Amino acid sequence: MNAPAPRHGDLLSGYLDECQSLVLDEIRAIVPRDDRHTGGLYELIVDYPLRGGKGLRPALCISTCRALGGSLAGVLRSAAVLELYHNAFLVHDDVEDGSEKRRHEATLHRLHGVPIAVNVGDGMLALTLRPLLDNMRILGMGRALRILEAVADMARESAEGQMLELDWIRRVEWTPAERDYVRMVYKKSAFYTFVTPVSVGAIAAGAGPERIVPLRRFATQIGVAFQIQDDVLNLAGEESSTGKEAGGDLWEGKHTLILIHALRSALAPERGRALEILRKPRVAKTEADVRFLRRLIERHGSVEYAWAAAERRARRAARTLGACRDVPPSVHRGFLEAVVDYVVTRDR
Amino acid sequence: MNAPAPRHGDLLSGYLDECQSLVLDEIRAIVPRDDRHTGGLYELIVDYPLRGGKGLRPALCISTCRALGGSLAGVLRSAAVLELYHNAFLVHDDVEDGSEKRRHEATLHRLHGVPIAVNVGDGMLALTLRPLLDNMRILGMGRALRILEAVADMARESAEGQMLELDWIRRVEWTPAERDYVRMVYKKSAFYTFVTPVSVGAIAAGAGPERIVPLRRFATQIGVAFQIQDDVLNLAGEESSTGKEAGGDLWEGKHTLILIHALRSALAPERGRALEILRKPRVAKTEADVRFLRRLIERHGSVEYAWAAAERRARRAARTLGACRDVPPSVHRGFLEAVVDYVVTRDR
Repeated sequence: MNAPAPRHGDLLSGYLDECQSLVLDEIRAIVPRDDRHTGGLYELIVDYPLRGGKGLRPALCISTCRALGGSLAGVLRSAAVLELYHNAFLVHDDVEDGSEKRRHEATLHRLHGVPIAVNVGDGMLALTLRPLLDNMRILGMGRALRILEAVADMARESAEGQMLELDWIRRVEWTPAERDYVRMVYKKSAFYTFVTPVSVGAIAAGAGPERIVPLRRFATQIGVAFQIQDDVLNLAGEESSTGKEAGGDLWEGKHTLILIHALRSALAPERGRALEILRKPRVAKTEADVRFLRRLIERHGSVEYAWAAAERRARRAARTLGACRDVPPSVHRGFLEAVVDYVVTRDR
Repeated sequence: MNAPAPRHGDLLSGYLDECQSLVLDEIRAIVPRDDRHTGGLYELIVDYPLRGGKGLRPALCISTCRALGGSLAGVLRSAAVLELYHNAFLVHDDVEDGSEKRRHEATLHRLHGVPIAVNVGDGMLALTLRPLLDNMRILGMGRALRILEAVADMARESAEGQMLELDWIRRVEWTPAERDYVRMVYKKSAFYTFVTPVSVGAIAAGAGPERIVPLRRFATQIGVAFQIQDDVLNLAGEESSTGKEAGGDLWEGKHTLILIHALRSALAPERGRALEILRKPRVAKTEADVRFLRRLIERHGSVEYAWAAAERRARRAARTLGACRDVPPSVHRGFLEAVVDYVVTRDR
């Protein structure tokens, strides 16, 4: 956070675009082209990736590897695997959340039904294993195995985090503490969006634990900040900029930090009404219900509260990264710094 | 098929029980016990495995390894991974097929909802990677890598096969040829139920391609026979013996060999009515609709036709196995022979 925001903004989007284009080529090379005896599986597998996300995860993986002196060729395959995993999670999460839109288009299960969407996600996961075995040849056995272990941890943490959130939705009466929320988003989102990409990039560069530990701390801090901010954008953002349904989290009854703060700050009758609304399944909620929740959040300044929590963590992340003196200045380190800036300034 | 059925039957169930008990212990060791910050994920992950399936896949894997001179300790972890995969497929398939019962109890998504069931399947898949990496230590790098590749192929083929079947359901007007059906069940079922377990068992025993190729041929033949017979049992079997809803395939509009034969044999008006019924979503079908399909199948002898097709393939499998002279007689080879017998005689 020591360069003016506009420069960081340019670096950020330029770096993301470059990585995303490399990663999409790599994904095209990983996904089989022959769809003759697959019922069209592979066409559906590349649907979400080709809708053009930001490609944040592969860019974090590539930039960390490069910042630590590793090569692009050594990390690209792993970066593509992380993006495939991300898209598999998106397909399944959209089913689990009943989401309507993803990247400005209808979600896969709305287009093709839940059965096909579940299987497309499984097909994506199935394609991640072979490229990780290619790492034996690309990076040697030691690094390849450590990356496989990192990916195994990622898959497990993500499933645990997702389950925590789904469990909270059914336990609507119980309002999690902020500590519970942070643990949940660490597992559900920060771990696969930041911690694993940074770790895998560092492993590909041949870094040992002494360099990886502080980078993982940085990734945890910025990852939790990122998810808090994502929740804010889900509520406050326009569909045109997020590519998702505005206020989707309220319809889905998710316990975001914003909602937790509002419920905690509300008086008993307000709180009772809010819980009554949250208890309803998505299809039973009305526009008035969601308006009530929005007003509750506004009245208690819960969005501002969440912003401050994200900003605090982002500043901590900036300090942690700043203390990584063994990562020399470079465009790649600059990208990591720009990501921190981005998290506190995007769409504000 | 050269020993009297009763002896084979005893060997079969005894061998299955013994393997299943070893594999369940191994699964218990693989699945984390600590469910404090997981929303109860791991309790749900062991639900299907502990309902007590036959454990056919791990038993095939273990018996092939042992028949080729490999050790139990060398194959048990991989066998448990195959059983975990199988259960993950079951959880997701039950969602995809809208199935009501599994192993005599309500399916996971009926008990906990689709979102949680999808995530439980993902959580199971996430747990398969670490034990396969343990094989590096247990079996050495060469065999461990070949097993990882075999599992990668399995996951891919299964997703392709599942997609083929889901694609057929939406293309109800089109009746697949028998050749298409065989390819679909090879991918959807035979590959992960027979071909992969046998291959992984052989790799764990250190077998080279010259021994694996004929065993894979055997596995393909018996695997397709097994699935054809499974379709017959789904239609004709009692819920009390299959643990699944009787006639579920008809409600779900699946293109089994039985249905393909009936549609092909039917006169135009019958065929038109049948397609009209199959076009309806599950919830719109009536008891009378399913009775009509059942009568059509009866009139054209389609169950007998499918039985004969399964039996022909099982006999071919018996010949292929019989020609594997480099697999010496043992209780393990005897189990493989008993499986062939079982496929043609079970519940007939």
